Amino acid sequence: MEQYIARRFRGAQGGLSLDTEALRRYDDVIDLSIGDTDFITDSRIIDAACRDARAGYTHYGDPKGDPELIEAIRGAWREDFGQDVSPEEVLITASSCMGMSQVMLGLLNPGDEVIVFGPYFAVYRQQIELPGGVCVEVETRAEDGFQPKEQALRAAVTPRTRALILNTPCNPTGASYSRETLHMIARIAQEYDLLAVADEIYTRYVYDGEFIPLRTLPGMRERTVTLNSFSKNFMMTGWRVGYVIAHPKLIRVFQYVNNAMTYTAPSISQRAALRALSLRDEMEKAYIAHYKERVFYMADQLEKIPWITLFRPQGTFYLFPGIEKTGLTDTAFCALLLEKAHLMVSPGSAFGKAGQGHFRIAATVPLEKLREAADRMERLNICIDDV
Amino acid sequence: MEQYIARRFRGAQGGLSLDTEALRRYDDVIDLSIGDTDFITDSRIIDAACRDARAGYTHYGDPKGDPELIEAIRGAWREDFGQDVSPEEVLITASSCMGMSQVMLGLLNPGDEVIVFGPYFAVYRQQIELPGGVCVEVETRAEDGFQPKEQALRAAVTPRTRALILNTPCNPTGASYSRETLHMIARIAQEYDLLAVADEIYTRYVYDGEFIPLRTLPGMRERTVTLNSFSKNFMMTGWRVGYVIAHPKLIRVFQYVNNAMTYTAPSISQRAALRALSLRDEMEKAYIAHYKERVFYMADQLEKIPWITLFRPQGTFYLFPGIEKTGLTDTAFCALLLEKAHLMVSPGSAFGKAGQGHFRIAATVPLEKLREAADRMERLNICIDDV
Repeated sequence: MEQYIARRFRGAQGGLSLDTEALRRYDDVIDLSIGDTDFITDSRIIDAACRDARAGYTHYGDPKGDPELIEAIRGAWREDFGQDVSPEEVLITASSCMGMSQVMLGLLNPGDEVIVFGPYFAVYRQQIELPGGVCVEVETRAEDGFQPKEQALRAAVTPRTRALILNTPCNPTGASYSRETLHMIARIAQEYDLLAVADEIYTRYVYDGEFIPLRTLPGMRERTVTLNSFSKNFMMTGWRVGYVIAHPKLIRVFQYVNNAMTYTAPSISQRAALRALSLRDEMEKAYIAHYKERVFYMADQLEKIPWITLFRPQGTFYLFPGIEKTGLTDTAFCALLLEKAHLMVSPGSAFGKAGQGHFRIAATVPLEKLREAADRMERLNICIDDV
Repeated sequence: MEQYIARRFRGAQGGLSLDTEALRRYDDVIDLSIGDTDFITDSRIIDAACRDARAGYTHYGDPKGDPELIEAIRGAWREDFGQDVSPEEVLITASSCMGMSQVMLGLLNPGDEVIVFGPYFAVYRQQIELPGGVCVEVETRAEDGFQPKEQALRAAVTPRTRALILNTPCNPTGASYSRETLHMIARIAQEYDLLAVADEIYTRYVYDGEFIPLRTLPGMRERTVTLNSFSKNFMMTGWRVGYVIAHPKLIRVFQYVNNAMTYTAPSISQRAALRALSLRDEMEKAYIAHYKERVFYMADQLEKIPWITLFRPQGTFYLFPGIEKTGLTDTAFCALLLEKAHLMVSPGSAFGKAGQGHFRIAATVPLEKLREAADRMERLNICIDDV
């Protein structure tokens, strides 16, 4: 069968997905590897979607997206960030993951380079490589609070660089880019005429300071491709609905690509998203506050463990502890954590070179489970010293 | 902005989409251009989806697809077509449109050729071109009942040919491939070692004889990539859920591509699809029978119009009349039809070279509207003679 597969995918594995075999091995595994909210979508959102489905929203709808949803997104953007967005600047996509693929397919020629800041969401590499692009990792370090450094970024730019992807607040590091960092990125993008692709799906998970969308910075509206989603901000991962905001000429190309893919985002999900937007302030109290509590609780616990170095998260529901002191590679450490403590986490090297020597905890389990997980890690102390 | 766009998309238009401006021009336009069912999804399907959403099916779920849905698809395939399908041969996708894009991205190197039988669903070309493939049209003719001819197919195969796409019953022609045609295609695929990509989304819209999936033919199971969907068979266009059946090694690659796109099909839609499958025999009586009635009614009416030549559809909800006798191009004819008769249809040339001199009617409006549309066309007779 190998001969039928496109050369760039020969030998490709299934990508990031659940290690169901490992989960089955022990009956008390605590799974801290899932980047999915543990809350069911708010019942008001489900009810609205069901009502609208019965009223006939079971058809394709406008391929650009439900006009009411586009209106609501524009309204929310104006209200939250004080910036006008024209309807021609918006495309609704079947998830922001889909959006990112469409953006990469729409922008890149084979051999074009895209800069990502490592540790980075692993799928970016696949998305860049779909049209034959090249993923160039600029490493960030825990000592710098995982903020990109200007010198490292400059050093990575070549004549083939077309764009950079930034993700703030950041999966997997939990870092939230400072205003200074954002201005530096904006400056470099303008200096080298790069597009900036801003993955901002954790918009409402900023625990410290306010969220600043890149496209609101001076000179960045035309140069920024903004990706957002209802998955994380509204506990709607299973609905697959997100959006792209970009210059109308770019949106036209993304829509062209979109037409060859999902054609339209699911209409029922778009109705759910419409209702969700109207509830966005309540989401924070009802759900996101829990993640903040969990992340800070877990940070407090991890800081007590001598073989862990921790950058305290500023957003998202992830923690990204360093385990250099153990002398183990991150994959060996994760295997040991599963075997000795029955804890499932993600090895940092899955998030690029800069992720080595770290592991990712997704605080998507209740506080009691986090407590139990922290206890098990603490007890592991001795075992690690023995290695 | 042009410089930021991938070279292959510069100058690309938005693709097939609704001409909303034309619709607004007159208040009595009958729109026969929409390839979407006019029925709302069956309430039993909506109810099941809503119940399951409330029960927690609002999360990502297994990226390969909801295990229960995969089981149900396997069961239905066994029952309907007498063939076993393994779970490793199935991938649930966010629409079969998405599936086709993933298949093309997974299979094609730049420059690889894929044969399509024209007139063909216009989006195939975009899907083939996404990874830099080349769309090669083999024309079929109304005189041959739009069945592909062996000689024409052989003449199109080159050393760069990797696959062929067939679509039966066919959008836009309404042709349903005969057993003889299917065997011919299977023979050629085997002789030249090609993959056959079978777009079978109108499975249940065969009005004459039975539906034969290509992969059930001798020697074709491993060589066929089957695409199916709930959109047309179950009046579920807005839900965006379909599936691919193929060799496990190919499925693994398609899943890799899928992970970079929608990651999983919408979980709520998958629960709707699960319920839909259990109702598949009822769908025919409740909905598809209406399309059969409409299509044959419209065929009867069109046959009375002297300037139309008609191939009588054998499936789908489309008719594809020829207008060579009018001496007009199909685009000029469609413009005239809109202006003089306030009827919106799709020009045949949108479906490839072989579509020239034809237009497509989607019988996705009630019978009364089809009657009115046929009357208006008949009255148009005189105007056409004047041209």
